[in-house]
This record gives sequence, structure tokens and C-alpha cells, in this order.
Amino acid sequence: MAQDMEHIVNHCKHRGFIFQGSEIYGGLANTWDYGPLGIELKKNLKDAWWKKFVQESPYNVGLDAAILMNPKTWEASGHLGNFNDPMIDCKDCKSRHRADHIIEDHFEAKGDERVVDGLPFEELEKIINEEGIVCPTCGSANFTEIRQFNLMFKTYQGVTEDSSDEIYMRPETAQGIFVNFKNVQRTMRKKLPFGIAQIGKSFRNEITPGNFIFRTREFEQMEMEFFCKPGEEKEWFTYWLDFCHNWLTSLGLDEDKVRRREHDEDELSHYSNATTDLEYQFPFGWGELWGIASRTDYDLKQHAEHSGEDMEYIDQQTNERYIPYVIEPSLGADRLALSFLTNAYEDEELEDGSTRTVMHFHPAVAPYKAAIFPLSKKLSEEAQEVFQDLAKDFMVDYDESGSIGKRYRRHDEIGTPYCITYDFDSKEDGQVTVRNRDTMEQSRMPIAELKSFLQEKVSY
Amino acid sequence: MAQDMEHIVNHCKHRGFIFQGSEIYGGLANTWDYGPLGIELKKNLKDAWWKKFVQESPYNVGLDAAILMNPKTWEASGHLGNFNDPMIDCKDCKSRHRADHIIEDHFEAKGDERVVDGLPFEELEKIINEEGIVCPTCGSANFTEIRQFNLMFKTYQGVTEDSSDEIYMRPETAQGIFVNFKNVQRTMRKKLPFGIAQIGKSFRNEITPGNFIFRTREFEQMEMEFFCKPGEEKEWFTYWLDFCHNWLTSLGLDEDKVRRREHDEDELSHYSNATTDLEYQFPFGWGELWGIASRTDYDLKQHAEHSGEDMEYIDQQTNERYIPYVIEPSLGADRLALSFLTNAYEDEELEDGSTRTVMHFHPAVAPYKAAIFPLSKKLSEEAQEVFQDLAKDFMVDYDESGSIGKRYRRHDEIGTPYCITYDFDSKEDGQVTVRNRDTMEQSRMPIAELKSFLQEKVSY
Repeated sequence: MAQDMEHIVNHCKHRGFIFQGSEIYGGLANTWDYGPLGIELKKNLKDAWWKKFVQESPYNVGLDAAILMNPKTWEASGHLGNFNDPMIDCKDCKSRHRADHIIEDHFEAKGDERVVDGLPFEELEKIINEEGIVCPTCGSANFTEIRQFNLMFKTYQGVTEDSSDEIYMRPETAQGIFVNFKNVQRTMRKKLPFGIAQIGKSFRNEITPGNFIFRTREFEQMEMEFFCKPGEEKEWFTYWLDFCHNWLTSLGLDEDKVRRREHDEDELSHYSNATTDLEYQFPFGWGELWGIASRTDYDLKQHAEHSGEDMEYIDQQTNERYIPYVIEPSLGADRLALSFLTNAYEDEELEDGSTRTVMHFHPAVAPYKAAIFPLSKKLSEEAQEVFQDLAKDFMVDYDESGSIGKRYRRHDEIGTPYCITYDFDSKEDGQVTVRNRDTMEQSRMPIAELKSFLQEKVSY
Repeated sequence: MAQDMEHIVNHCKHRGFIFQGSEIYGGLANTWDYGPLGIELKKNLKDAWWKKFVQESPYNVGLDAAILMNPKTWEASGHLGNFNDPMIDCKDCKSRHRADHIIEDHFEAKGDERVVDGLPFEELEKIINEEGIVCPTCGSANFTEIRQFNLMFKTYQGVTEDSSDEIYMRPETAQGIFVNFKNVQRTMRKKLPFGIAQIGKSFRNEITPGNFIFRTREFEQMEMEFFCKPGEEKEWFTYWLDFCHNWLTSLGLDEDKVRRREHDEDELSHYSNATTDLEYQFPFGWGELWGIASRTDYDLKQHAEHSGEDMEYIDQQTNERYIPYVIEPSLGADRLALSFLTNAYEDEELEDGSTRTVMHFHPAVAPYKAAIFPLSKKLSEEAQEVFQDLAKDFMVDYDESGSIGKRYRRHDEIGTPYCITYDFDSKEDGQVTVRNRDTMEQSRMPIAELKSFLQEKVSY
């Protein structure tokens, strides 16, 4: 059931998932704070990614490079020269827009999902004129020319504000991996193919952020650069595209809400020989979740040229020397969290005609794995013992306020897969009632079996 | 055995723990990148903290607030007005220093561990004159006056660089907690006492960063704000001080390398009624690891005044209304990692007169929990099966190059607690040889028991 975004945003706010950033000060444009449940959800997603992309992978290792990098990095990567959004102003109402976005919105309203991202400015202006696109704020067709706007946040390091100290907050985590390619390969004695994975914050001074946590100026990325022998990149591209796709659905994203969108020739970056986005069907439409790109040797070559460092790999079996090719699966952690939030949300009509709100998270992803309820406050002590013991291995909640029915509803709303009630019989028979969030069925289970039961449910 | 810092820095670089940031471009003053082993170490420490401070705690919940906050936050917190370092320049050689640091270094050389941090500028100048302190760079005694230097990194959000868009990179994670106090208390229906814990990056434009990852401009914090009823703060201060101290030693920091330093009256912030630092004995001397401060109601009051929001808590048992008092244990994740690295490092003399380098990490903290070796490459397939199975639950390595002895040494150097050798008997008897890093003793163990063996060792 499609839920509009406002509904999701409100639910996230009132149930402790995500709050407006700096809310008591009226917020700060499009910043968001993860509340106690939101951080658990996001942490579970990051941990699940690390488990599959690093821990279990025979190929990959992790990295955590600094947010602040030598500015020469951004010269080499092209971010200083080319990392610009097409900005357009309305001369009448003075509102500012991204030219590519107002064009895409215009086409979308006509049922045409055209993508114009990356087109030259002249072509964008031509489309605006030909289609008679008007200002979304005031409806007038009196725009300035399109201008470039660099997306990097600039700051100053050290004690003076002269240009020698100008540095940038990284706009992507990828470059931290490329500059460390040799360090990692050498110290970990890695042979091709291998990958380097990283999770971290990036910053882009977007002109028009929006759609809740889908597009924010401060965001978290989960990126991997997978290095392979030139000629083998197409095979690995397919391997990782499938791997990423499977990862999403194995953790519970609906298969029919995830699709692949292959970039055609016009849309491909000049250095890429294949790029496919994994898109998710958000309440506001299909949106990019994961970009999987075959980037050839472009990045390492750029850094070799700008730094003077040798970026070649020596193949010890064939004695060949070459700069490896790269496959980059790049995922946004915040929009990933948003996809899991919207995917899980349901206002479910029950047989008795009433409605319950329930978040159908995979147990591995759910903030709490279980909640422990004493049937009566007289059983607090015993129920808390069960809680303390489970808490050693799982994120669990303890809840003793209100009727059991109310507690069930409360935990349905935050997606707790199992509610465990300790009642007066429990003392005698060592059993508790375990209630399933999705089926609402209840069954008795020995307390001694709870850990292995939950362990099996959260594994994936 | 005390190891000098250069030794540690080199070991970290060559064994994949920590690289210089942006190294191929000559670095960027005092930034560091965590390599494949460093990120595992740091992740283990962060996870261990989250486990004890959030997951297992009956009091606390987590949070992840944005790095970019409304600037009014920093007016309320005092960071815009008062967050300044005392900066002094040498008129002769033009080098720049922190006045408090050159004074403390001067006293330390005389065996006096005096702390002058926080003293008024006039007093610092008086000490410099009276003690005849000279420039550490050129030896001359020709200083400028001490001036204030604000430690916050400034940047601009949105599309113009006028002052209305001026924002700051947060200098601490704590304020993200305070501004969300009501959001968390309300949505999680929390009763006092309770705490909010957070891990995240902060940024301070330090004049003189240094000592490897001990003091960096970009750093990661693990902070908690624990809210309690006024009058109960001393009790909770002691509780959390003990809790933090125990956490450090339970994960393997030597008890005699951790000490408490109580702030005396002169040193206490005006709003604090008790502060104690947990210090670690680094190779360069005792350094602050964890500051545990009783901050009264100062922070919430400041935000109530500046935001106009009601920060009072209503005690439902007594119907009292009050602003809670706060205990803040504030820990630096990078200096925590440094303490574990230096604590673990040993150049050990063996009985045969040879030396081995070994990192004695607690298994919960060690980057790899185990390494799997086939005795011969003919056993690769079977050994990889063992690896793949263990990798589902643990961070483990697979290593088949060089003699078993060399592989032992390599894993001693990165602190892998158990090396598991699959040999020609293993096929027959289903057993492998498990070698203990610290004792170097070897024993046979059924493959089927490896998981429960490792599980027990990594639990804490």
C-alpha cells in the first residue's frame, strides 16, 4: 500500500525514528537527526552491508578515510572543476531551482520519465524554452541563464582565512579509497581482484535538497571500489550488480519495488563503459538507491597523473603491469534507510474492522528484535531478568506500561518482530508467550530457547 | 614496555592499521585514514561501547544527530563566544603556538605536571614572562600578545556566501543530544534517570594538533548525556565514573596505565560541580581519554533560554517540574584506539633469544578473531570451507602464503588471537591445530567446536 511521504515523516518523528535537525531552533534546511529507533535501523543496515561486503567476502577489506582531504584530491577527481549543478533563478519571484529538476518534473507530470541529468546547459535551456516550462513557485516564465554552482562545502583549516588553507568537506567517500589503493594493496598483500569498502559521511551543497532523507546536504555513503584486471570488468560488473540487488531483497525490500535502470550511451560518464542504477519505488516515485558503475582506470589514472605516484599493479603470475579497472557500487545509507522505512510501513485493516499500523521489518533490520512484557507489575523482577539476559546478545526492549494489547500495538508501530510476555505460569513452567508481529499468532516457548529462536530469526 | 610513538606510527602504517591522510598528495596536516585493520579495531571499540552503554543498559538509548546544526545552537552552548584557544606568535621566527601548551611543556620538562588549560590570558602571559619561557621553534623570547582563536570550522550553506548562510561543523556531539532531549524523552516515554548516547565525527580547528591520532582536527566522539533528578547527580557521577573505568580495563587496558585525575576548584568549568578525567599513560605521557563531568542543568537551561522551548521534566510520581541535571562521560574514539594500540604492542624477547612483535589485543577488540591456514596449498579447498563458515559469524582471515611460522609471526604483528591450521590429518579426524597468540601453545580442536570456542573468547 503506497503511503504518502508526509505520513511516513510524521510516523518517524512521533515514534523516535527521525527528528528534524536542530528542531528547537526552527531546524536547519533539510538536516535530520536519527532518534533512538532510527539509529538502530541505520546501524543494522550498515552492519548488514559490512557483514556481506567485508566480513564474509573473500575479496574485500574495509577502510575509513578522513572527511578532510588534501584539495589536490578534488582537482584530480574533477570535483573542483566539474562538480556543478545547473542553477536557474526566476527573475520575478527570485526563487532558485535546479534546471534539470524542473525539466524532469515537467516531463513526469506528462507521464514521461525522462532523465536530463548531465546534459549541457544549452540543451537544458533549449528544453525549457521549447516546452514552455515555468517557475514552479510563481508560474512565470522569466528565468535567468543557467549557471554553474559548485557543490562542495568549503572551509578553512589553520588559523588564517587565506586561500592556501582552503579545504573542502568531501563530496564522496570514493576518493579516500582511490588515494589509498597502494597502501591497502601493499599492507594487506592483496592480489587482484579485490575491493575496498567504506562507510562514511559526505557533504554536498545541494541547491534543492528534499524528499525527507532522500536528498540531504549531509549524507552517509556506503561505497566500494572493486579493482580487477582490464578486460574482466564486464564480468565483475554483472557479479556486483546481482550481488547488490540480492542483498536488498534478501533483507526484505519487495522485489517489485526494486528495478534496474541501465544508463544509455548519452547518459554514461565519458570514462564509464557501463552503469546501472538500482532504483526503489518511493512514495514520490522511483529514485536511485545504488549506482553500480564500471569506471575503467579513470580514477587511478587521474591520481597517478596529479600525484606523480605509480598506481600500477604488478601481476605476479604474468609479470604484466597495468592500472586496474574499477567497479563501483555506491549506495546512500540514508535513502537506503528511507526505502526500508517506506517498504515496511503498513496501515493494516484487521478482520474486526479496526486498523493497526505495523512496520514489517526483517528481524535483522528491526530496531528491537523483541520486547519483554511482564503480564503484571508483580512480575517485573522476573521479566527484567529475561530482558537483561537477552540484552547481552540482542537489542531488546522492556515495557511494562499499559495493557498487553496496547503494548503489542506500540511495538507493531516500531516494527518489533516478537513480543514476549512473562505471565504467572512462567514462574512455574519456565515458558513465555511469544507473539509474532506479522501473523499476530501466539505460542508458548521455553525461556531457555529464546536466544536460539531469535538468533535464527535475525540471521540472514 | 614503553614504545616510542614513532615505532607505533610505523607499525600502524606498515601493517594496515592507520595511514597518513591524502598521503599521495603529501598529506593534509594531521589527518589520518584508518586502514583495513584499523577500521576493524575502531569498529570493535565502538560496538563494544554501544553494547555496554546502549544495548545492555536499562537506562540509555542511542541517537545520531547531524554534524551541521543551526548556528543558534553554538550561541546557546557558548561555542561561538567562548570556544577559543589562546594563540601566541613568535615575532622572530613567525611560528604559531598554543600558549597553554608551551607553558605545560615547560613545566613538564621540570617534572611538574601542572595544568594551565582554561586560565585567563593575562595569567598565561604572566607565567610566560615569569618563567622566561622561549619559543620552542627558535628559542627567542619575543612573543606577541595572546589572542583568541575560535576553534569551529566555518562553512556556507546554500548558494551565496553571505553571513546569513554561515554554518559550522560541530565541535562536539553533545549539543545534538541536548537539543533532542525532549524529542527523545517524549517519543521513547523515558522516565528519569535516563541517558542518550551518540557516536559521531566532530571538528576542531586546533592550532597545534599532534601526537598521531591523539589530537586531530577531525575526530570521532563517543558521548553520553545522562539526565537525572537534581540532588542525585553526585551518586550518578560516581556510578558512571566507575562504569567507564571498568569498561576500559575489562577490554584489556592495563590497570596501572589508567588513572583518575580530579579537576580541582580552579580548573572546574563554572557550571560543573565535579569533573574527573580518566587518563591513559601514552608513550608521550599521561593524556586525557575520557572526561566525566557533572554539568548541572547548565546545558538544558541555555537551550531553554535561547530557543524558548520548555526543557522541564515533569516527575509523574511527585508532580514536580524541573530541568534535569546532567552527567556527561565524553570519550574520544581515536585516542581510545591509540590507547589500545599502544597498550597491545610488544616487542617480545623469546626464550631462544629472538624477538617477535605481538599485539596483545583482547579478542573482542582484535581486528581478526582468527586466521585459517592450510598446511599445504593442496588443502586450500578444505581450509577455505572452514574460513567461509567462520566468516559468517566472525571477522577472520585466510592465509596460505609462506611457512606456518611466518604466518604465525604475521598474525602476531596484527594481534590475531588464534591461528587455525588445517593439515593432512584434519580431513581424517575433523580436527585442526589452534595456536594461542600470547602463550604460543598449540592444541588440537574439533572443527565443529571452533565457533563456540571463538564465541566464548570474544564475549565480554
